[in-house]
Amino acid sequence: MLIVGERINSTREKIQEAIGKRDAAFIVKEASKQLAAGAAFIDVNCAMTSGDEVKDIDWVLSVLQSELADISISIDSPNYHAIDRAIKIYKAKGSLMINSITAEGSRIDSILPLALKAKAKLIALTMDDKGMPDTAEDRARIASAILDRVKKDGFDPKNLYFDPLIRPISTEPEQAREFLRSIPMIKDLGANTICGLSNVSFGLPNRKLINSTFLAMAVYAGLDAAILDPTDKLMNSSRIASLAIVGEDGYCADYIKAFRAGSLI
Amino acid sequence: MLIVGERINSTREKIQEAIGKRDAAFIVKEASKQLAAGAAFIDVNCAMTSGDEVKDIDWVLSVLQSELADISISIDSPNYHAIDRAIKIYKAKGSLMINSITAEGSRIDSILPLALKAKAKLIALTMDDKGMPDTAEDRARIASAILDRVKKDGFDPKNLYFDPLIRPISTEPEQAREFLRSIPMIKDLGANTICGLSNVSFGLPNRKLINSTFLAMAVYAGLDAAILDPTDKLMNSSRIASLAIVGEDGYCADYIKAFRAGSLI
Repeated sequence: MLIVGERINSTREKIQEAIGKRDAAFIVKEASKQLAAGAAFIDVNCAMTSGDEVKDIDWVLSVLQSELADISISIDSPNYHAIDRAIKIYKAKGSLMINSITAEGSRIDSILPLALKAKAKLIALTMDDKGMPDTAEDRARIASAILDRVKKDGFDPKNLYFDPLIRPISTEPEQAREFLRSIPMIKDLGANTICGLSNVSFGLPNRKLINSTFLAMAVYAGLDAAILDPTDKLMNSSRIASLAIVGEDGYCADYIKAFRAGSLI
Repeated sequence: MLIVGERINSTREKIQEAIGKRDAAFIVKEASKQLAAGAAFIDVNCAMTSGDEVKDIDWVLSVLQSELADISISIDSPNYHAIDRAIKIYKAKGSLMINSITAEGSRIDSILPLALKAKAKLIALTMDDKGMPDTAEDRARIASAILDRVKKDGFDPKNLYFDPLIRPISTEPEQAREFLRSIPMIKDLGANTICGLSNVSFGLPNRKLINSTFLAMAVYAGLDAAILDPTDKLMNSSRIASLAIVGEDGYCADYIKAFRAGSLI
């Protein structure tokens, strides 16, 4: 399972502050500890900083790649210019991921050439002009339409990650099942699945328990990648135990290693 | 999800001792705390006591029903005479469950009439003369054969609970997936599914983490009932969170109640 570390997100107050103050040490530390905890990509979101997103993402990427030469980055932005700048500034030896497109045609038309040029992986949210789909079937239908579109321009489906968009169970109790059901349907199209998990628990207490329990189900359903905080012990324990259970951890080696390192709950 | 509390099991040293010493208070307390934690049935296993299983199960049931007038019992025995005695002695206002039959013909022939007479629920392990099945399909095939057999004698499939037999992932990494895949297949036959979970983690450290993570997957797969220790906080948290996630806890009421009671991790 590919982990995208979610901590460098400007919706978090401390990150917003650190970017505002140009606190390079804080940003590098946030990335380093996520990499140490198993993140393959570090998500960078500067959309909520007070200043200029293009300048801010330029600064964050410069800082990260100067300290972490192999870092892979997930560029998390709704802004074409920020994505474009991030791609131009990125010189590290890792890979890029662009987070995200939707079925919206104009956004695909602008972002897809950037992804192709940068050989970046691409996250596509299964939503269209009508909004977020309710059923698994609608999620798969939108995914299929996006897949057809990007393939037309030669984008490799192996680099495409669909996020079927989980919604809060507190208000929509049937949505987790619809989300989970959609995973094998989307994988059958030949693409990957990814998910930001934490929406599932919105409005509930002890959100980490819901998030980590949901992760176990998503691993069983076949989720290929997750955007999460890999430094969270409960989440990490659930992920590692889940992969052992579904047979994706040969001889339970990672599980036993994590146990010995004291990193399981 | 129907919970069968597993604690009164003579493979546990303290239970063996308590039965040997006729420590009624200890036995009643073990049942009471499981009932308080959400068990619908209390499993009683006297197979490993040093003395006479028939006498021992007679004593345990007498003690339990004298203190807990509504208690429902799962009679966990390989011994026809012990099951027969338990049914005869049982006078409480709850229900009985018999744990368990397999596809073995002679065992069905002897136990089924007892279950019918006592209007008991019946646990059937999906194993036959050839042993434990490897694939989900083999589990469903054995379940189907057992179902056909018990229906012939008028046993209501709604009272039948199939245990598809989980095996340790430490030695057979593909078995959890096969088990989980078999759950909807068996439910499609019109019967219920149940499972003693703890075998999944045999041979691994931090077994409770594996067991509780596996429970989340099993709830998503549709498991109707589980034989477990409801007083275990991690297991209970996983169960309650899982049911909320799959939409089987209206308005997340049980989840919020458990959170407020401090019974979640």
